[in-house]
Amino acid sequence: MDEELKKLAIEYHKKYGGKIGTELRAPLADKNDLALAYSPGVGAVTLAISRSPDLANDLTLKGRTVAIVSDGSAILGLGNLGALAAIPVMEGKAALLKHFAGVDAFPITLTTEDPNEIIETVLKISPVFGAINLEDISAPRCFYIEEELRRRSSIPVMHDDQWGTATVVLAGLVNALKLKNLKIEDAKIVVSGIGAAGVAVSRLLFAAGARYLRFVDSQGLITKDRIDLTKEKIELLNSSQSEYLAGGLADALVQSDVFIGLSKPDVVKEDMVKSMSEKPIIFALANPTPEIMPDIAKESGAFVVATGRSDFSNQVNNALVFPGLLKASLEVKGCQFTNEVFLNVAYALADVTADINPESIIPSPFNDKVVEVVYTAGKKEFLKQLAS
Amino acid sequence: MDEELKKLAIEYHKKYGGKIGTELRAPLADKNDLALAYSPGVGAVTLAISRSPDLANDLTLKGRTVAIVSDGSAILGLGNLGALAAIPVMEGKAALLKHFAGVDAFPITLTTEDPNEIIETVLKISPVFGAINLEDISAPRCFYIEEELRRRSSIPVMHDDQWGTATVVLAGLVNALKLKNLKIEDAKIVVSGIGAAGVAVSRLLFAAGARYLRFVDSQGLITKDRIDLTKEKIELLNSSQSEYLAGGLADALVQSDVFIGLSKPDVVKEDMVKSMSEKPIIFALANPTPEIMPDIAKESGAFVVATGRSDFSNQVNNALVFPGLLKASLEVKGCQFTNEVFLNVAYALADVTADINPESIIPSPFNDKVVEVVYTAGKKEFLKQLAS
Repeated sequence: MDEELKKLAIEYHKKYGGKIGTELRAPLADKNDLALAYSPGVGAVTLAISRSPDLANDLTLKGRTVAIVSDGSAILGLGNLGALAAIPVMEGKAALLKHFAGVDAFPITLTTEDPNEIIETVLKISPVFGAINLEDISAPRCFYIEEELRRRSSIPVMHDDQWGTATVVLAGLVNALKLKNLKIEDAKIVVSGIGAAGVAVSRLLFAAGARYLRFVDSQGLITKDRIDLTKEKIELLNSSQSEYLAGGLADALVQSDVFIGLSKPDVVKEDMVKSMSEKPIIFALANPTPEIMPDIAKESGAFVVATGRSDFSNQVNNALVFPGLLKASLEVKGCQFTNEVFLNVAYALADVTADINPESIIPSPFNDKVVEVVYTAGKKEFLKQLAS
Repeated sequence: MDEELKKLAIEYHKKYGGKIGTELRAPLADKNDLALAYSPGVGAVTLAISRSPDLANDLTLKGRTVAIVSDGSAILGLGNLGALAAIPVMEGKAALLKHFAGVDAFPITLTTEDPNEIIETVLKISPVFGAINLEDISAPRCFYIEEELRRRSSIPVMHDDQWGTATVVLAGLVNALKLKNLKIEDAKIVVSGIGAAGVAVSRLLFAAGARYLRFVDSQGLITKDRIDLTKEKIELLNSSQSEYLAGGLADALVQSDVFIGLSKPDVVKEDMVKSMSEKPIIFALANPTPEIMPDIAKESGAFVVATGRSDFSNQVNNALVFPGLLKASLEVKGCQFTNEVFLNVAYALADVTADINPESIIPSPFNDKVVEVVYTAGKKEFLKQLAS
């Protein structure tokens, strides 16, 4: 990030004192309003909810409010900087939700990194929320935390670094493979960086029909003979039909069709791209510096290049998914986030761009149709859950 | 509460879907704004806060946001109805804070009533807040919870049922005693109902110079020979210079000057008022039905009558204090709520009404001056803390 942008970002936050505040939705003009909004009238609302708890969704902010929860352990690409430093990111997410989908959201950052303490704390504060968006929680803790919260909470829970990313990646990949005329079932895909996003991307690719995935982490190719594997990595390996291969990223990429990087800047070199199959697809999503810069990837033969950045074409941006999807989740009480939901949202998102081409496989978050399309696809799947 | 008001209150909440939402404070019009508010620009803000944690107050919502926290164990006068039923009250409080003082506040209701779990949960979610307002937590748990949170939290903590009430009661009593030309040091005061509010009112009265207090709880007069006393009740008894007296409320009231009821409807009868000293002061604050109705108290000789209700004169309403006081607490980083703060706010609030008379000892919360006066008095005391 250049110094000018840093300066402007600090000034922007200072000028507005952060990004979100609260607003009144109901009138409080006089004593009569006060008697309805607060004592004594509010007592009737309290009693009504105590008798029929579901009424909290309609009579309070609960039904339309998302918690954006983080422990600050994996903030953006910056690492573990704690609960205070996490606030501007979570507040930004709340601002995006309001701006793009009209959804109320409130940031909650936690002074603990203990997974069970995080789970207990989130459960204890969940009455006032209609959905929970986990954010910037490091792997592998994030998998257990999400899984337990989904099991124990009565409201839908989504770790956006996992599923927002996975859904947008799949949407982009669907279009890129269309351009290449290659089925996902036949694509040889290398996923580099098996953290929160890498695991979810891989899981969703399998759910979408992909069979040939190779996984590379900081120790190189993931193989069955490694003794340092988390249970998530073992699960991914067991799901793949790729033949055994040991080595590093360069070995993995030989003759592969797709590279999906969720790892580190500059780890992909020109000759690695050249070693891939003809017209490879490169998703270099490390932020802010990608695994390989788009111009270099192109010069080395890449057919489609996507990054996480707004200053290049094909930005893989979570903001395409979470606003519409969380909005949908609030509207279908009792729904849950599942692979089916993410798959169908990804397919709907892929279809937003009518004239796809190598420079345009993913719409911009400022595309007016995106929120509506994601919302509609998500809601349809959520309603299916209730019907089944 | 009449059926019509109940119906209107439910309709009001349903129509607006609760009372508060979030609002954008900063522009998000295009890619450039997005790059400042969110990735990548927000990374600079995150790093700045990780280096200088105090910056979170200026660069995020923290510095201007209050948590309204309850476990739903003592909601209004309705009892223990739990975390969901508590939401409309806490949301109402947040709405009042916004409306009267322009302060952002967010309701947090907890699915635990264990004091230590409440303390741990509040501490864990406190990074995003600049002050904590505890609400509707039953006694005696509320005393330990407030005390521990004040000791362990880096932000100011106030249980409004205690201190908001105590401050307004003292403000009203100061004016009522002025009208009676009686010094607080000489006033014989009976406090009935020794829960959260009763304990705090009594503590603040002592801090204001009162010496002769008698305390009545559900078991009658509090005396040293009772074996069922909490440590708060023992402390209050030890602080009073009243002579030993056993019995019930009727015994306590004989020849007393002031009755402060924070207890139950209709416990004060006409002959009890008549047994008090000449022109007694009656604060019958049980809600919604007072300890004695104002007209009956007046007919029995009462000089000044205050209640908790907006449909009688002299409403003792917490909304006079918490908006301005919490606003002040947000602006003085490192401040704490203390007796000195509450005393000086009470004296300032008493002075708002220029022409006091028995029907007007306390201003209305819709009086334009109130928030400013409370804010200024509170801020002055908070700044004194930092100077000393």
